Amino acid sequence: MDDKFLIGLDFGSDSVRAVLVNTKGEQLATSVHNYTRWAAGKYSDAAVSRFRQHPLDYLEGTEKVIRDVVCGIDPAQIAGIGVDTTGSTPCAVDAEGCPLALKPEFAENPNAMFILWKDHTALEESQRINDVAKTWGGTDYTMYEGGSYSPEWYWSKLLYVLRHDEAVRNAIHGFVEHCDWITAELAGTSVKPSRCAAGHKALWHESWGGMPPEEFFAAVDPLLIPIRRKMYSETFTADVPVGHLSAKWAEKLGLTTNVVIAGGAIDCHVGAVGAGIRANQIVKVIGTSTCDLAVAPEVTKCVPGICGQVDGSIVPGLTGMEAGQSAFGDIYAWFKRFVSIGGKVELSDLEKEAAALPDGDVMALDWMNGRRTPDANPFLKGAIFGINLGTTPAMVYRALVESTAFGSRAIAERFLREGIKIEGITAIGGIAKKSPFVMQYLADALNMPIKVAAYEQTCALGAAMFAAVASGIYADIYAAMDAMAPETDMVYTPKRNLDERYAQYLRYAGAYEQEVMKQQ
Amino acid sequence: MDDKFLIGLDFGSDSVRAVLVNTKGEQLATSVHNYTRWAAGKYSDAAVSRFRQHPLDYLEGTEKVIRDVVCGIDPAQIAGIGVDTTGSTPCAVDAEGCPLALKPEFAENPNAMFILWKDHTALEESQRINDVAKTWGGTDYTMYEGGSYSPEWYWSKLLYVLRHDEAVRNAIHGFVEHCDWITAELAGTSVKPSRCAAGHKALWHESWGGMPPEEFFAAVDPLLIPIRRKMYSETFTADVPVGHLSAKWAEKLGLTTNVVIAGGAIDCHVGAVGAGIRANQIVKVIGTSTCDLAVAPEVTKCVPGICGQVDGSIVPGLTGMEAGQSAFGDIYAWFKRFVSIGGKVELSDLEKEAAALPDGDVMALDWMNGRRTPDANPFLKGAIFGINLGTTPAMVYRALVESTAFGSRAIAERFLREGIKIEGITAIGGIAKKSPFVMQYLADALNMPIKVAAYEQTCALGAAMFAAVASGIYADIYAAMDAMAPETDMVYTPKRNLDERYAQYLRYAGAYEQEVMKQQ
Repeated sequence: MDDKFLIGLDFGSDSVRAVLVNTKGEQLATSVHNYTRWAAGKYSDAAVSRFRQHPLDYLEGTEKVIRDVVCGIDPAQIAGIGVDTTGSTPCAVDAEGCPLALKPEFAENPNAMFILWKDHTALEESQRINDVAKTWGGTDYTMYEGGSYSPEWYWSKLLYVLRHDEAVRNAIHGFVEHCDWITAELAGTSVKPSRCAAGHKALWHESWGGMPPEEFFAAVDPLLIPIRRKMYSETFTADVPVGHLSAKWAEKLGLTTNVVIAGGAIDCHVGAVGAGIRANQIVKVIGTSTCDLAVAPEVTKCVPGICGQVDGSIVPGLTGMEAGQSAFGDIYAWFKRFVSIGGKVELSDLEKEAAALPDGDVMALDWMNGRRTPDANPFLKGAIFGINLGTTPAMVYRALVESTAFGSRAIAERFLREGIKIEGITAIGGIAKKSPFVMQYLADALNMPIKVAAYEQTCALGAAMFAAVASGIYADIYAAMDAMAPETDMVYTPKRNLDERYAQYLRYAGAYEQEVMKQQ
Repeated sequence: MDDKFLIGLDFGSDSVRAVLVNTKGEQLATSVHNYTRWAAGKYSDAAVSRFRQHPLDYLEGTEKVIRDVVCGIDPAQIAGIGVDTTGSTPCAVDAEGCPLALKPEFAENPNAMFILWKDHTALEESQRINDVAKTWGGTDYTMYEGGSYSPEWYWSKLLYVLRHDEAVRNAIHGFVEHCDWITAELAGTSVKPSRCAAGHKALWHESWGGMPPEEFFAAVDPLLIPIRRKMYSETFTADVPVGHLSAKWAEKLGLTTNVVIAGGAIDCHVGAVGAGIRANQIVKVIGTSTCDLAVAPEVTKCVPGICGQVDGSIVPGLTGMEAGQSAFGDIYAWFKRFVSIGGKVELSDLEKEAAALPDGDVMALDWMNGRRTPDANPFLKGAIFGINLGTTPAMVYRALVESTAFGSRAIAERFLREGIKIEGITAIGGIAKKSPFVMQYLADALNMPIKVAAYEQTCALGAAMFAAVASGIYADIYAAMDAMAPETDMVYTPKRNLDERYAQYLRYAGAYEQEVMKQQ
């Protein structure tokens, strides 16, 4: 067993990365490929929040990064490949499961490509789904996705494509998530739907036997009926193999057809596994936004106001729950741009100054990109209070950091209020590594220690762990996490009590939200 | 009469200016002197809001600027000198009316100098006066000063000095406003108290026979009793002569002792006269802060929440009312500093960009220096709402301009609500001249045309008008205004309706004020 290696393949928003690890999780090689069409700005338009990715970017990247990491390795030693991708990032496919954009007649059509998670073109379609879910007289099928269906998710995007593109509407046979397509492509099999993607993004739930019934989609828009009829009802956790590497891909990659392809799943969920998540723990992926993953046993009630709860979506056998802040590091980046119009300002300088300041009058609300959780509200915006003529950028930066920490606390308090225990918090992602000031503020705000994992590529590592289970090296994902999860790099311990300031944040937040909603 | 000239002497916060005008108000000469000790930063400490000015700065400046403007003029042609000063800017004096700082033993003692209007060292003392006024069981003597006595005003500053400086407490005989002292000094007579300063800053009111009774001050602090006992009860409008130029000053200035010295008054009130204010009109002095002066006939009720109302304080025979915003241009200056940390940003560039923007989501509250009127509240602070990740400095600048315009509208609406008619608005001051963008926004917000006077030095001109009346050239101030007031430079006419945005501003303002006050 010790001479076996696993590949974790991690599709991010801008690039795909492969890591080659041994059965202890030690990294032997890594390679990154930036999507070339995407980097050239093709098919997307930020002004209308349209973000599309061509399947060739994924295919070319897969070949490149896997060939890189296996270079010089005996192919017989590669036991399995695990995959995570962004999501919900689905694509229209033909009857053979081939993305339409891979066919000549659709090669340049953005509606025939993968619709990246952050694409917001389907805003109206999501509103339609929510309206019907609340009013059609049957079950509210959004209940396990926080009670509000996002324009970033599967059915919204499908309906958008069906409504706006006749050619695609006539050619479409199915609508497939990135993580489902790429695993089927590598294995040369049909799709084995990811429990994680289906449950968190596509309204799948065990209790209604899979997808919501046809009547519901008929009420939303009859255009959806044909796809619903062809829809799967069974889904799979990522430790279940999809198959073995196909002969076509074995040849492309210089590998054998003995390589097991594990099930795909969504990146931050897999990252939580890579960080070694356990029952009653939260893994926070902290970057431009945050993704808060929690797993708990026996969650019998529906937790309102989060992004979703799905049995086995993160770890088989436990309920996986997702929450998150729609802007975190993005807020700091915005502020940096804001104060840099006269010349470049470095966040590190602001941070040094801010860290030396006492708590002041300035207080902010972290809703610069709306609020995702708790209780999604896209109408909310950011605010800054307590400004006087002596207020400096460092004071405002400190308040912005505080507001993101308090936004994080609001999520934790929602879990606690609903009876979900939080016995440990691990942070991964760029900000967890780069900003001790932010991380200390976060520990203080949450009033809990926060561990930072001693590894940057926890998503790819989590994918490799699933590959290790799927290929039989470990009996289950717990054994894989025990053997392969990274050490703790450092622990941020709470140093002061912010209860009073948090109470003030909640008061400002409540008053402002009330005023904003009066105007809607 | 046509060969007579008048001098207007205008003491500002940083400098004193003289203008020499003929009886048509045409300027023949002007001269400015920056206070030398003040410019060197002596006796003041911005960190604790202590701002003191040495009487020698005033005396040296007076000699310099008057000698400058009369140079080459036949002394017999100078008919009168009118004076305005900042206020409340009082000073401890001895039995002869000499400021203590002019005596060797007090020459370097800031508590023996003039305490500039914006000095806030007497915060506790003002709170004491307000507490007693509301609770002592008698008349609330702050009622004609808006119901809230300021730390910037006479009795607060006197009490501060008495409490904090034993040497001054032992030597003090009286406490004299700058405008009262300098006129008495020039005339070599005793003080002839200004109606304007006494009524707006020192609790003087005709209805209680002058100053509040001794019992009131005894309840505040018995330290005040000796000064109260020596206090005047009669006050004078600025058209009443204080006397003639003394022999000492005639020699210093190269003038004759026939020159009439008119009564002193506070600068922005005199500026309103210089701009030609009439009944039911408002003159707005718009600079770092604003001062809104209104005059109306037969004001029988007490207008709550403004800075004061005094018969004859602006124009003899009418009730003069003062309101104002504690920060206006200061807010733009703050924002310029804020976005300039990476390199200098010009407001003119921001303004150009802001002017081209549509109304956006960003909305601000203009309380960066508290709120002076309507309804003084020093606890309030500024706020910015409606921020998203695309919010630019120009968008915020536009919102800040809007907030200052709406703060201005709130004052106008208070006057209207209390039955004070507004039939015309004239703007003077730096911003009125320099920023068409701000002025247009103001006209739109107020939904009234705003005239801008075609003269920069309306305070000095107003002082010269009073000199023209005091010296008998004109029968009264109306005749002087008719003859001497400047033309209108331009008129800003409302171009769009901002009622809806103003209503939103009020909603945010109300919700935020409520939250702030819960924390007090």
